[in-house]
Amino acid sequence: MPHPDEKVHPAATGLAKDTVDKHQDDADLVFWSGWFCPFNQRIWMALEERKISYKYQEVNPYKKEKHFLDLNPLGLVPTLEIKSEGDSQNKALYESDVLVEFLEDLYPASEEHPSIFPQDTYEKSWARLNVQHITKKIIPAYFKLQQFQDSSDQEKAREELYSGLRTLAERVKRPYFAGEQFTAVDMSIAPFVRRFYNLVEYRDLDESKVGNGWLEYREKLLDRESLKDTSSEDKYYAELLSRYLKNEAQSEVAKSTRGGQSLP
Amino acid sequence: MPHPDEKVHPAATGLAKDTVDKHQDDADLVFWSGWFCPFNQRIWMALEERKISYKYQEVNPYKKEKHFLDLNPLGLVPTLEIKSEGDSQNKALYESDVLVEFLEDLYPASEEHPSIFPQDTYEKSWARLNVQHITKKIIPAYFKLQQFQDSSDQEKAREELYSGLRTLAERVKRPYFAGEQFTAVDMSIAPFVRRFYNLVEYRDLDESKVGNGWLEYREKLLDRESLKDTSSEDKYYAELLSRYLKNEAQSEVAKSTRGGQSLP
Repeated sequence: MPHPDEKVHPAATGLAKDTVDKHQDDADLVFWSGWFCPFNQRIWMALEERKISYKYQEVNPYKKEKHFLDLNPLGLVPTLEIKSEGDSQNKALYESDVLVEFLEDLYPASEEHPSIFPQDTYEKSWARLNVQHITKKIIPAYFKLQQFQDSSDQEKAREELYSGLRTLAERVKRPYFAGEQFTAVDMSIAPFVRRFYNLVEYRDLDESKVGNGWLEYREKLLDRESLKDTSSEDKYYAELLSRYLKNEAQSEVAKSTRGGQSLP
Repeated sequence: MPHPDEKVHPAATGLAKDTVDKHQDDADLVFWSGWFCPFNQRIWMALEERKISYKYQEVNPYKKEKHFLDLNPLGLVPTLEIKSEGDSQNKALYESDVLVEFLEDLYPASEEHPSIFPQDTYEKSWARLNVQHITKKIIPAYFKLQQFQDSSDQEKAREELYSGLRTLAERVKRPYFAGEQFTAVDMSIAPFVRRFYNLVEYRDLDESKVGNGWLEYREKLLDRESLKDTSSEDKYYAELLSRYLKNEAQSEVAKSTRGGQSLP
C-alpha cells in the first residue's frame, strides 16, 4: 500500500514557486528543502533575509535520493550542501537551529547581507534562548494540538500552546522580537503562525486568548516579505495538514508526537 | 513527607570544592550551579576552559530561593546572572547550549581566554551539530538506561546509548572531537562519561562495545583538568545516582524521562 504521505503535492506553489524559480542556477550552497515543512521554511527565510545566494533543491521526503542521504544520513530537510573546491566530497549541515547560526556566521553583518541576530552579546544569547523556548515549549504543543484526537487532550495542548505564545509575546520588543531588526526568533515562529489558520478552523484555536499584544505581533510576522515569498498556497498546506489532523501523517515529527516522544 | 531528593549532599566535594572555594569573590558573572548536575558541569567547564572570572553560587534545586527564581522562572541550573551597572535588575541567561555560546561570544579567542569552538565557520557549525547529537541521541538514552527498571527496556536503552556514542566516536578527530582543541562538543559529553561508572556497576554498560576508538577518546576526556576540577567525589554522585537507578529521583530530567517526555 502506498505510504499515505507519498501523494503530497510534489512542489512549491504560489509565491514560493516564484522564489524556487529564481534559485535554479548552480551556487556554492545547495538548499535541500521540503516546500511544506515549517522547520525548513525557517532556513529558507534566513537565506532570503541574509540575501545569500543558493540553489533550491526540492526533496521528496518519502522517496529520498541517494545523494541526499549521503549528505544527511538522518534524511531530514532542511539540509545545506556546501560545495568546496579541492574536497572530494561536498560538506553538509543540518538541524535548523545549527543552520541559522551557520548562515549568520557565513558573512559579517552588512547592508548587502543583513544580520539575523542582535549584535550585542547578551541580546544575541537572549534571542537564542527564545528560539529554544519556541522549540521546546511552543512547537511540541502545536503538533500535539494538530494530531491529538481526544477533545480533552486537545484542550490541554491548546492551553499549552497559548501559554508558550503568551511568554513569547510578553518578550517581544515590537515590532519584532528584538525591536526593529527581524531576527532568528521571528523566523523560528513565523512558519508555524502561517499554518495556524488550520488550527483555527479545526481545533478551536483563538489567538485573541494569547494576549500580551500577540495579535499585533502575529500581523507583523504574517506581513514579512521573506515569509510570503517562501509560502505556498493555502490549499496545498491544508491538503497535507489534514493528514496531521486525522493523525495519519508519517513524517518523523508526526511519528514522534504520536509516540509521546521528543521531536527529532 | 520530605521530598526524597531533599537530602542530597548540599555542596561540592573533592577537587570541585577547591574550585568553588577559589570563586567566592564578587564578579560580574554569577554562576548559579548545582554541583551534581551534568548539564551544569558543562558550563562550569566552559568557564574554567575560557578562564572567565565568575562567582560560584550553589543552588539547592529543591529549596529554590526567590532571587534565583526571579533570574530564571524555570528554576533550572545552570543559570548565569550578569551584573550590569545602571540596570535596575541584573540580567540572566540559562539553557546550557545557550550559555556555552554566550561564554564563547563574551571574549574573542586569545591566549588569555582560549576559545571553545573551532574558528572555521563550517567546523564551528559541525561542532554545534554534534552538541545537538549528544543532546538529542546520547543523553536521553543515558537517562533511560539509568531509570528504566525493566531489563528489556534497559537493553534497548543500552543499545541506543552505544549507537549514539558510536556515531560520535566515529567523528572524533583525536585527541579531542575537533583535534587538538578542546571544544564545546567534548564539554557536552564529558560530564556524562564521568558518571558512566555507575552504569557500568548497575546497568551492565560495557564501553568496549562502542568501538571506533571510543575507549581512547573517553580516557582523554576523563583526564581533562577542567573536568577533574569541577568533579566531586564518586561516593556523593553515587548517593544521588542511586535514586535515579531506583527511579525515585525527582529532578525535572528524572520526571520527564519517567513520563516518556522530552528533556526540559
